[in-house]
Amino acid sequence: MSHSDSISPLAPQSYPDIPALDGVTFSTAEAGIRYKNRTDVMLALFDKGTEVAGVFTKSKCPSAPVDWCRSRLKKGKARALIVNSGNANAFTGKTGAASTKLTAELAAKATKTTINDIFLASTGVIGEPLDATKFKPVLDKLVKSTKADGMLDAAKAIMTTDTYPKVATQKVMIDGVEVTINGMAKGAGMIAPDMATMLSFIFTDAAISAQVLQKLLSQLVQTSFNSITVDSDTSTSDTLLIFATGAAAKRGAPKIKDTNDKRLKDFKNALNDVLLSLAHQIVRDGEGCRKFVEIHVDGAQNHKAAKRIALSIANSPLVKTAIAGEDANWGRIVAAVGKAGEKAERDKLAIWFGDIRVAHKGLRDPSYDETATSNYMKNEKIDIRVNVGAGGKGQATVWTCDLTKEYVAINGDYRS
Amino acid sequence: MSHSDSISPLAPQSYPDIPALDGVTFSTAEAGIRYKNRTDVMLALFDKGTEVAGVFTKSKCPSAPVDWCRSRLKKGKARALIVNSGNANAFTGKTGAASTKLTAELAAKATKTTINDIFLASTGVIGEPLDATKFKPVLDKLVKSTKADGMLDAAKAIMTTDTYPKVATQKVMIDGVEVTINGMAKGAGMIAPDMATMLSFIFTDAAISAQVLQKLLSQLVQTSFNSITVDSDTSTSDTLLIFATGAAAKRGAPKIKDTNDKRLKDFKNALNDVLLSLAHQIVRDGEGCRKFVEIHVDGAQNHKAAKRIALSIANSPLVKTAIAGEDANWGRIVAAVGKAGEKAERDKLAIWFGDIRVAHKGLRDPSYDETATSNYMKNEKIDIRVNVGAGGKGQATVWTCDLTKEYVAINGDYRS
Repeated sequence: MSHSDSISPLAPQSYPDIPALDGVTFSTAEAGIRYKNRTDVMLALFDKGTEVAGVFTKSKCPSAPVDWCRSRLKKGKARALIVNSGNANAFTGKTGAASTKLTAELAAKATKTTINDIFLASTGVIGEPLDATKFKPVLDKLVKSTKADGMLDAAKAIMTTDTYPKVATQKVMIDGVEVTINGMAKGAGMIAPDMATMLSFIFTDAAISAQVLQKLLSQLVQTSFNSITVDSDTSTSDTLLIFATGAAAKRGAPKIKDTNDKRLKDFKNALNDVLLSLAHQIVRDGEGCRKFVEIHVDGAQNHKAAKRIALSIANSPLVKTAIAGEDANWGRIVAAVGKAGEKAERDKLAIWFGDIRVAHKGLRDPSYDETATSNYMKNEKIDIRVNVGAGGKGQATVWTCDLTKEYVAINGDYRS
Repeated sequence: MSHSDSISPLAPQSYPDIPALDGVTFSTAEAGIRYKNRTDVMLALFDKGTEVAGVFTKSKCPSAPVDWCRSRLKKGKARALIVNSGNANAFTGKTGAASTKLTAELAAKATKTTINDIFLASTGVIGEPLDATKFKPVLDKLVKSTKADGMLDAAKAIMTTDTYPKVATQKVMIDGVEVTINGMAKGAGMIAPDMATMLSFIFTDAAISAQVLQKLLSQLVQTSFNSITVDSDTSTSDTLLIFATGAAAKRGAPKIKDTNDKRLKDFKNALNDVLLSLAHQIVRDGEGCRKFVEIHVDGAQNHKAAKRIALSIANSPLVKTAIAGEDANWGRIVAAVGKAGEKAERDKLAIWFGDIRVAHKGLRDPSYDETATSNYMKNEKIDIRVNVGAGGKGQATVWTCDLTKEYVAINGDYRS
């Protein structure tokens, strides 16, 4: 049984039209890394002057491409991004590092740049050496066939067990000049048998320095990609990169070099929308999922405490299985709050499912209606709110999906 | 579908004979708290002079009986223990506190002691008020019917979704005098729909002061009950109490008042055996489990780091589902090591399943035999060893079970 056989019931109904964006073009190819009869490598080519920033997995065992990108980011300039599916090039030791270097050398030659301008990401099997020579026969074709409207195809080429490609787009004004932000993503954390990784790439024609991009990304990732969880398993390869081609400067857009520049405000909001949309799409493709769950915690000592409590609820197998069973089991939420280790005032705790308050002042709400709550739990989207009563202003929102028998079946692989 | 329908395939083949132990007697009754036609309350009566110590859930939302016991422990003396199943008296606010007080008052009257000598524990539904008046009609009978060999029946009375009662026993010499340690337990963390809690009670006729008992328990719980995990969910009610009647002093056993007393050594080892046996029995009754998994981590910076990495592996849904599927998926173990946040040297990491080394120096072991490993994964007990290559002497062992579709079915309750 494979998740890829059918599209997630929580998939978006349609894809947005992704507008072309000055300064970046895309192409895809079949390199035959693992899959047959499908694209498995994508190239994004950037105009000279493209600035780049990124955030990566916190894993102590990162993949070779993660190591590669981290080193390249110091310069903050990018000319090409190459991503393959089918092999994560993770836990591959010196062979893995040699493989990233060879890939970058091949790509630098084909694109007439230097290896320090090449960014890499890989997703797929862990522990198998990645044969970088497989990129050689396809690189020239990739470079020659790039096109401005190729992002959706690129998003498809990097899918592993994803059941649909994930894309998002926003247009926004910077100082009176319209700029575009396009984004793509794959995965849902560690999702499938041997298949690792959340990857996301954002492209914009805005003219923003690498340093400013880095600050924006580091801040916004906290409330988007770092606020989702499917199964609490962190990949060795998580990679989020943003590329700003600066092409909008030709149309009069200002070059932003200061994070406090007020002209950034709308851009920041739009970038947040793109990141959040992609993050939600990843959760909605969680293996075996049938419910999209938003968990909001308030009344905590501070935002960090609120997020820790929210993730404790979101990662609780008992909460997730209860939601799968359409059971408003608030006792398990109490337990998940308790185990988070952050201050919570048991006798002031309140819990809502949607608009229904099921617990109040540390007790079952006297007006709690079992039938109404059961009906609410049949929804595809479930909103849980918890006021932990610690008297603070800390709050956080995280997103997850339910834990179903299908998750176990997909990941257990039931060979017997 | 309920787990209780059939006994866990990992249950012990037989129960040990539990010898009577001077200074403690047991009885059970049907108080009708939730279940019909089965015992749901147990009483243990202790001779005067019985010393007591305990450790409890770290939950910030502890149950009312946990609050009660914590307060009573300061005195360190016990005359009675009352435990009920069917209702956890957790998240019940002031009503819950009043209920524990009333229970203790009723028990103190029936046993002719004071409420400060009464210890309480409850397990079952969270968030429902516990009607303590239900104990009143059965207390006199309980007090009159206690017997020295009643511990196995007591262990049965406190079962909720447990599929078998959990008991263990050891005999050991203190300064030439034989003493007995008997223990009982129920649960597997937060295990079943609305049913919370791990409870364990240890009884000995050794003459050991409350202070020494507390130090022993606090230390030994780390490598037994605090080293097991079924689903990473911590209960609001976890309680471990040890009662030392001191009756062995009549046969010449010394009164131990100093933790450094060398005569304690064998007792400590025997107590550890009892705790470990009960802890393992709890894992072996994990919902839906088919595999008992021992995870040993070494080569870590220190013991704490080793334990954190071991628990990260043990709690990983992807590792647990792979084991359920009899898949030696070491890539997921790498990922779980990486996400633990402790130092690990990717390029020195080694992983074993049983005696088979599947990864070595950060790479798949060249001599790794897929067939032999697949055969190994068919065993009921799976041993995983990870050397994280951080160069330290830190090591830890934890135990868990696999994550199966049955776990989800049991906890999801699939109402639809």
